[in-house]
Amino acid sequence: MGEFELIARYFAAAPCARPGEGIALGIGDDCALLAPAAGEQLAVSTDTLVSGVHFPAQPDPFLLGQRSLAVAASDLAAMGAQPVGFTLALTLPSFDATWLERYAAGLGQMAQACGLRLIGGDTTRGPLSLTLTVFGSVPAGQALTRRGARPGDVFCVGGNLGDAAGALPLVLAERSAPAELAAPLLAHYWAPPPQLALGLALRGRASAALDISDGLLADAGHIAEASGVAIHIERSCLPLSDALKAFAGETAAFEAALAGGDDYVLAFSLAAEHLAGLRAAGHSIHVVGRVLAGQGVTLLGEGGRDITPSQRGYQHFREPL
Amino acid sequence: MGEFELIARYFAAAPCARPGEGIALGIGDDCALLAPAAGEQLAVSTDTLVSGVHFPAQPDPFLLGQRSLAVAASDLAAMGAQPVGFTLALTLPSFDATWLERYAAGLGQMAQACGLRLIGGDTTRGPLSLTLTVFGSVPAGQALTRRGARPGDVFCVGGNLGDAAGALPLVLAERSAPAELAAPLLAHYWAPPPQLALGLALRGRASAALDISDGLLADAGHIAEASGVAIHIERSCLPLSDALKAFAGETAAFEAALAGGDDYVLAFSLAAEHLAGLRAAGHSIHVVGRVLAGQGVTLLGEGGRDITPSQRGYQHFREPL
Repeated sequence: MGEFELIARYFAAAPCARPGEGIALGIGDDCALLAPAAGEQLAVSTDTLVSGVHFPAQPDPFLLGQRSLAVAASDLAAMGAQPVGFTLALTLPSFDATWLERYAAGLGQMAQACGLRLIGGDTTRGPLSLTLTVFGSVPAGQALTRRGARPGDVFCVGGNLGDAAGALPLVLAERSAPAELAAPLLAHYWAPPPQLALGLALRGRASAALDISDGLLADAGHIAEASGVAIHIERSCLPLSDALKAFAGETAAFEAALAGGDDYVLAFSLAAEHLAGLRAAGHSIHVVGRVLAGQGVTLLGEGGRDITPSQRGYQHFREPL
Repeated sequence: MGEFELIARYFAAAPCARPGEGIALGIGDDCALLAPAAGEQLAVSTDTLVSGVHFPAQPDPFLLGQRSLAVAASDLAAMGAQPVGFTLALTLPSFDATWLERYAAGLGQMAQACGLRLIGGDTTRGPLSLTLTVFGSVPAGQALTRRGARPGDVFCVGGNLGDAAGALPLVLAERSAPAELAAPLLAHYWAPPPQLALGLALRGRASAALDISDGLLADAGHIAEASGVAIHIERSCLPLSDALKAFAGETAAFEAALAGGDDYVLAFSLAAEHLAGLRAAGHSIHVVGRVLAGQGVTLLGEGGRDITPSQRGYQHFREPL
């Protein structure tokens, strides 16, 4: 079976590219053709997920389909980009029709939810891994970057933190939990909803933004560094779900929120005057700190005490490996 | 070391993205931002190379750097796109500074030759594999696709065929050869020059085009199917290098040219009236057949005899694996 046949057969359920909506040519030629409207820029991000590194070695392919696209689409949300399409490079150890059907079904469900169309890809044989490249459009000059945070801004997140990291013992089947605790935590791990609507709403309002993948402290550090500012975060302001606190206990819940990673929730800075309008439009926004002159990220505990931990978030290629 | 630091440190030699020339934002944020000029479309292609499948298990990383980008850039040539940039998703079993330096050097050399800038990527730990996504610009409506071949067109290729496939015994160190034979064959395997200038010259002239990755017969079949035409190829017209014929012998040389794959030479159809102008502009073009009403690809031997083989080119995910 050829590559195009494979893609066409198993990914037909996904909303494949048809001309229109920014896509002039989809699957089936040497390249896809994206057709941005005049004045639009194209946001591009690539993410790789490797079996045993980014997900358990034998995942449910439906869940993996959801997660692989959600993680990539979250970068579009972080830029305030309108989703357009994506490519999928799929490396599989062997041809497995059942696996492909379930993976495509999960991918298709997330693609539909995000408004992303499959425009091309590559299929190869090898150890299971997935590389997705996502495309979104944003009017020139309106993309949200990490560089614009200003002293005086408030520092916010778009939802609960730590659920995905807290879910890891469940994902790895090291622990079990009653369904009412396990379900929301596992859902956030396997299908973190990309905050695309929030990203669009932040255009023209947020001074800096990103999506939290390495943990709040590490990612706040990225904004602080890129913007040349300091960020103070108040531990007591961190939004934690009841499920996470009940499952992990309060101390581990905070740890997951600060350094766990995999949240795919937006973190951003803005002038406080924008909060009311965003909340009135239905966006859930938690102020967790503020931006000051200076550098680095400081975590404040009770009474404003500096309780910044030394270990910050998850990184590949830690030295030495 | 963080992802951006890793990319910045080892890929600084590559011509990384700076604003301008279609790139508004390069490495270091959640997304890169491409800024196509008004009326331009963006050609996008993704290619994965897996260790032991697409290249020998322990390749020279410099050569792998050249090859990984050349293979991807060839898809831009096939669409008649002007190179803009690329993303690199690099999965490595362990942190290896020497490997990264040499890979980046090879990648950078090919990037320079192609006029492609690195705009982003992802680094992960796992079995060695590489996914490159390339971006090029093309005026709306001018991209070369596989769909427009017309009865009466001549069918052409842009250079010698079979050198890369013929080089495989050398690549795998199963055979050796004198340097004057080995060098050009190995060069074509490890650094096949993407025919970007030819692709640009074919805009407005070729009725259909692609780059040969699966072997001439299989890829001519892709044009025949997409265009709804028949293609007749004359075996005696296939351009074979002297090195290939001397190293592999004539029979194996033809086999490599017809079904070997990995050529990354353009194959295209056009009205014969365009040949003189293209050749006058310095493009090396070999007419290897013609387009007729009908379907499928037929190989013609001496006296016009049909000698079409049944086996056509290399495909991943052959059933059963």
